[in-house]
Amino acid sequence: MKKILHLDLGERSYPIHIGPDLLSLSELYQPHIRGLQVMIVSNETVAPLYLDTVRDALADFQLEQVILPDGEQYKNLDILKLVFDALLEKRFNRTCCIVALGGGVVGDMAGFAAASYQRGVDFIQLPTTLLAQVDSSVGGKTGVNHPLGKNMIGAFHQPRCVIADTSTLNTLDDRQLSAGIAEVVKYGIIQDENFFSWLEDNMEHLLQRDSETLIHAIEHSCRCKADIVAADERESGKRALLNLGHTFGHAIETATGYGNWLHGEAVAAGMAMAMDLSARHGWLGDEDVERVRRLLQQAHLPVEAPAEISSQQFLDLMAIDKKTVDGGIRLVLPDKIGSARVCSDFDHRLLLQTLEQKLPLADA
Amino acid sequence: MKKILHLDLGERSYPIHIGPDLLSLSELYQPHIRGLQVMIVSNETVAPLYLDTVRDALADFQLEQVILPDGEQYKNLDILKLVFDALLEKRFNRTCCIVALGGGVVGDMAGFAAASYQRGVDFIQLPTTLLAQVDSSVGGKTGVNHPLGKNMIGAFHQPRCVIADTSTLNTLDDRQLSAGIAEVVKYGIIQDENFFSWLEDNMEHLLQRDSETLIHAIEHSCRCKADIVAADERESGKRALLNLGHTFGHAIETATGYGNWLHGEAVAAGMAMAMDLSARHGWLGDEDVERVRRLLQQAHLPVEAPAEISSQQFLDLMAIDKKTVDGGIRLVLPDKIGSARVCSDFDHRLLLQTLEQKLPLADA
Repeated sequence: MKKILHLDLGERSYPIHIGPDLLSLSELYQPHIRGLQVMIVSNETVAPLYLDTVRDALADFQLEQVILPDGEQYKNLDILKLVFDALLEKRFNRTCCIVALGGGVVGDMAGFAAASYQRGVDFIQLPTTLLAQVDSSVGGKTGVNHPLGKNMIGAFHQPRCVIADTSTLNTLDDRQLSAGIAEVVKYGIIQDENFFSWLEDNMEHLLQRDSETLIHAIEHSCRCKADIVAADERESGKRALLNLGHTFGHAIETATGYGNWLHGEAVAAGMAMAMDLSARHGWLGDEDVERVRRLLQQAHLPVEAPAEISSQQFLDLMAIDKKTVDGGIRLVLPDKIGSARVCSDFDHRLLLQTLEQKLPLADA
Repeated sequence: MKKILHLDLGERSYPIHIGPDLLSLSELYQPHIRGLQVMIVSNETVAPLYLDTVRDALADFQLEQVILPDGEQYKNLDILKLVFDALLEKRFNRTCCIVALGGGVVGDMAGFAAASYQRGVDFIQLPTTLLAQVDSSVGGKTGVNHPLGKNMIGAFHQPRCVIADTSTLNTLDDRQLSAGIAEVVKYGIIQDENFFSWLEDNMEHLLQRDSETLIHAIEHSCRCKADIVAADERESGKRALLNLGHTFGHAIETATGYGNWLHGEAVAAGMAMAMDLSARHGWLGDEDVERVRRLLQQAHLPVEAPAEISSQQFLDLMAIDKKTVDGGIRLVLPDKIGSARVCSDFDHRLLLQTLEQKLPLADA
């Protein structure tokens, strides 16, 4: 069972292949590589598992590789340089292709390297985590972190092709699987209540990594994101809905130190906080808040921010997030399960209540 | 006397203002700044001369500044980080505007920072060298150097507006003025023999910084480049002609250490070498080679590469240049003054003769 989605972005359109055992299929790569030189970018965790398979599939090309350390804490300009060093040392030219083999961090960094090397070369994404398969591989956002903010340095750069091999999810640890489910749940909340209900019915199958269930969840998530991105490639409008939970979440990731909370975990807590804030305005009912919290908890995801982040630190970090406009915080707030809007006219006292709720009583 | 050119690039179109005493005119900046936050990027040489004027013109905005060290040797990722640090420390958001006040290095770095910060913010260029006014400010090429190659990391990112204040050329040292003239001469060679003849007649006025002569030369050069860029924004075809002398020149800059030869000086030697190579093929006559050498020498520019670069080193560096395709060197070779073509079918033995010509006889 293999699915193909086509992301329609004019001359930057590309296919997303979803299914088991795809990494070994040369014919999926070949049409998207223009030159002879291919640089595989991976990390120390993923390379031992899948690098040989990918090298075999690309044996016709002049293959080189660069293996990065694994973790969000390495997603920065210094580590990015290692990719540029490898490209220059191997004399890669403008017709080369960069292949990203790994999760979201590898994809974001390899993608930004591809966007910037010689002002733009091709790249192909081979996402090996659920999070990367349902989120990072669709939409062309690439970049690295700055100590003061997540994803602050980057580019929009679409891949030539995405190959989401669902067999790779069998080697994912449970925590990483759950983190990916957070982004899957997000699509249900922002635009599809039926899908949310399907997730409530199928969460146990997902957690057990049932192949058909995974493929359906990935395909539906990619399709949902693809529709939104095709309508708004550069995030001037509707695309901002994809940031549900992300302004809270990025603050958690930055405050706790990149790599301590997984991105999906921080987004899960952020989504629960967005639901809470929306309910405090009376924009949705407590039962919807509870449904979301219950589903996230069923997926072993956090629904509260860590107590050590003060409300003031939260506000400071949220104010620096990319979604701000002239200092004002903009949040994605659901008005029911299946619908949300971008909002800057929320009540700041209610936001403070949401932020303080996480704290132990003694600090509140 | 003030001129306005409009670079026509669809939704990325922008005006280029050329004339004396323009930096103080608020009304030239205002229409192109969407938000409240403006970051001026300049260098230690230019800031003491013009920063106050620019700050006064932008007094209505939340102004911040970052002053970089001056020189091509600082055009790298480490120095670029200083710009990102400043933007994040001052909590600049996606509606901010970066203003580049300086020569080509400042423009390239500030432009790349603008391309990458939060995946793209606005920028305005205030070029203060002749080279930047006739070359770097038109076309949207931004980027930094890598130890192994010039401009290897960057982006295409168009400014919102260019303000080329010709009064700033009065403070330029003679060597920088000459370096800019190299790029002016280039436009004559690649597509306009009449302009080349005009330069032969007016070189002394240019060197004396006669205002009208400078304005004409800048306007004509920008118009020439604008026409080429509008036809081929991402350099898939005709735009490559603008690289006349640059493959040789980049090799000289990289081999001698960034900052020792000015970019325009390296390009001048590179253009003379391209003429020489073309003549060796019989594609143009010795008298054209001589006319170009004479005009460059009249502008106090070098017409030969430094003797310390061996032919092998030259070939190695040229092979890594962005203009290569799958290992083959592509060169821009004139077939007369006023016309050139991109060429990969040249005779490599003749290229070696051109490269060896620079060496003292003992080494040849």
